[in-house]
Amino acid sequence: MTDGIKDRTAIVGIGQTAFGKGLPQSELGLACEAISSALDDCGIAASEVDGMVSYTLETNSEVDVARSVGLGDIRYFSQVGYGGGAGCGTILHAAMAVATGQADVVVAWRSRKRAAATSRPWAQVEARIDGPGQFTRTFGLLRPVDEIAMLTRRYMHEYGATRDHLANVAIAARKHANRNPNATMYQRTLSREEYMNGRWISEPLCLFDNCLETDGALAAIIVSAERAKDLPHTPAYIHSAAQSIPQEHQTMTNFYTADPLRGPAWECANALWAKSDVKPSDVKVAQLYDAFSPLIILSLEGYGFCARGEGGPFTDNGNIELGGQLPVNTSGAGMSEAYVHGFNLITEGVRQMRGTSTSQVEDADSCLVTSGEGVPTSAILLTNAVQ
Amino acid sequence: MTDGIKDRTAIVGIGQTAFGKGLPQSELGLACEAISSALDDCGIAASEVDGMVSYTLETNSEVDVARSVGLGDIRYFSQVGYGGGAGCGTILHAAMAVATGQADVVVAWRSRKRAAATSRPWAQVEARIDGPGQFTRTFGLLRPVDEIAMLTRRYMHEYGATRDHLANVAIAARKHANRNPNATMYQRTLSREEYMNGRWISEPLCLFDNCLETDGALAAIIVSAERAKDLPHTPAYIHSAAQSIPQEHQTMTNFYTADPLRGPAWECANALWAKSDVKPSDVKVAQLYDAFSPLIILSLEGYGFCARGEGGPFTDNGNIELGGQLPVNTSGAGMSEAYVHGFNLITEGVRQMRGTSTSQVEDADSCLVTSGEGVPTSAILLTNAVQ
Repeated sequence: MTDGIKDRTAIVGIGQTAFGKGLPQSELGLACEAISSALDDCGIAASEVDGMVSYTLETNSEVDVARSVGLGDIRYFSQVGYGGGAGCGTILHAAMAVATGQADVVVAWRSRKRAAATSRPWAQVEARIDGPGQFTRTFGLLRPVDEIAMLTRRYMHEYGATRDHLANVAIAARKHANRNPNATMYQRTLSREEYMNGRWISEPLCLFDNCLETDGALAAIIVSAERAKDLPHTPAYIHSAAQSIPQEHQTMTNFYTADPLRGPAWECANALWAKSDVKPSDVKVAQLYDAFSPLIILSLEGYGFCARGEGGPFTDNGNIELGGQLPVNTSGAGMSEAYVHGFNLITEGVRQMRGTSTSQVEDADSCLVTSGEGVPTSAILLTNAVQ
Repeated sequence: MTDGIKDRTAIVGIGQTAFGKGLPQSELGLACEAISSALDDCGIAASEVDGMVSYTLETNSEVDVARSVGLGDIRYFSQVGYGGGAGCGTILHAAMAVATGQADVVVAWRSRKRAAATSRPWAQVEARIDGPGQFTRTFGLLRPVDEIAMLTRRYMHEYGATRDHLANVAIAARKHANRNPNATMYQRTLSREEYMNGRWISEPLCLFDNCLETDGALAAIIVSAERAKDLPHTPAYIHSAAQSIPQEHQTMTNFYTADPLRGPAWECANALWAKSDVKPSDVKVAQLYDAFSPLIILSLEGYGFCARGEGGPFTDNGNIELGGQLPVNTSGAGMSEAYVHGFNLITEGVRQMRGTSTSQVEDADSCLVTSGEGVPTSAILLTNAVQ
């Protein structure tokens, strides 16, 4: 019955603010700046925007953003939950709205200003811990990094992965950031020795296994594939997209299942590839969500670039660096460009399709972009030509 | 380029809990009960559900609901903002997901357990008021009812509407509730004299101009129109649907515009009717969002059932009661059945299409359902046969 969304829409405009800590703008100001920049990028007037999608995490309301940027009459709006898992979901929702004619020009965005915050949500005192946290926080799993550290221990135990594999991930991202003038870590290199001497955040994860803390905002504009052809840049066609909450899931990490290392990425991949003419072996560049380095290794497995347990060795010999088999996170991503809940993975995916990345993969005609692994997640497959 | 969503999906199952104050179940328990009931209603297994949509207001996470009800692998999830404005938006999102093949069986729901709360969000002490409230709360617009009361004053001044018109709305809803055994006010009648003697909540709005405070949950199951034909009940086809945030909008009431009485309903109606083969004059029953009685009068105008300023007189002579020209809120709705942020308007719309309402409009072959007017809103047009 359905024609689906395949190749019917494209990301045609991208925009971003400066990245930093303690930026002078408000969180609303950052959002507006990124959205205006994305509209300028594709030459579409703000008044033409009639759809808006963001994260449930977003503190800026649609009403305030729309009024402040001068958007048109909005006919579709949506939010996606689960923090870093939401990014590609916003693009999927936008694509659905355009493909069904519920909106013509949709903006997806994320603005974040808490890099300089002195207290993080999980560090705040609560009268009572609700949800799964009540069973784990009392045993020391306080922060997201603690949950992922325990998952990483299990992974290392099961498959013999090492800190060198994690270092491969951090160093690849840093090398790409060193080529990207807009990246936070543009001028700061990272050697293997420096990685190995990095202080523990939650063993076996050291400082360099963690994403940055960043103020900043990014936005993307989605229109129909027809209209995309008339706009200035090579369209980044939305070929396939999916979200995933697997059965019996627990947010972040699921230690109540027989196979805790098989997170939402696997089902998300099933849904994504089932609707895609492009297969993992065709993909020459990927932007994989990287709040923590082991998530890259798990995602390489989950999205089918290697078998279970082979994600560690897959990162050896520069395989995920520019020039390798599958360059990953070519902007520097969350670990070395900026951490804005993964939205910069989307904009970098678009640049790869345009051929304008500072770590451009020359023959890339598709790019996988994924959102947070562990939490309910999402992914998109972008192409630079209709298949 | 698009076939849109028209007639491609249907609501095939509806479910609800008991309504009350201080119900023993948790908010999660209520959600699960309503969803399970909706699945039983259409004979679809929980494990077949692969899409979930709710309100940003919903405190139950998708993960907890999915795990607790035993849903399948979820491939689409979405939330809609703005409280009472979100209801029909959840159905639109579900319809888009099914129409594009991103999901096959989507559950939309709302669970609410705060009827017995001693303190409402707007009554709580804040260190600082953010957003538009900083310009109005200091002048006495503390609660939603205060904002709508001022809007109602303006409406009465402009158009000569009276408290008798507001009473018409409250009494119509109550009469319908008196026919609905599941309604909170099933056994409590409301006379015009009682209405006129009701205590002020915010002049000119008295107790009976306000919705109830209710614990309870409701859910709806959305599948393709093809599949709907094989299920037990007459499908409530989703013929047209829209959301709306008009340009330059301010949430709830907008006193910064030349025409404060023209809220989001007008643009929502434009988007809804533009895609609909059914026109307002064809509609024989409507469920209009009713957190406050004047919203019904504004919605009658906004959705095109009468001209500007004629919403008051439109309610005279039993015109919006069963037997009248346009029976409105035939379950008793938010004012006399239950207030669950408008989701019970959707389930009653489905019953009207099935022919099972306790205030059934005999020749109704379509039903308009709307969400909150004033706030960013949404609406759906249901039919009982593909046009």
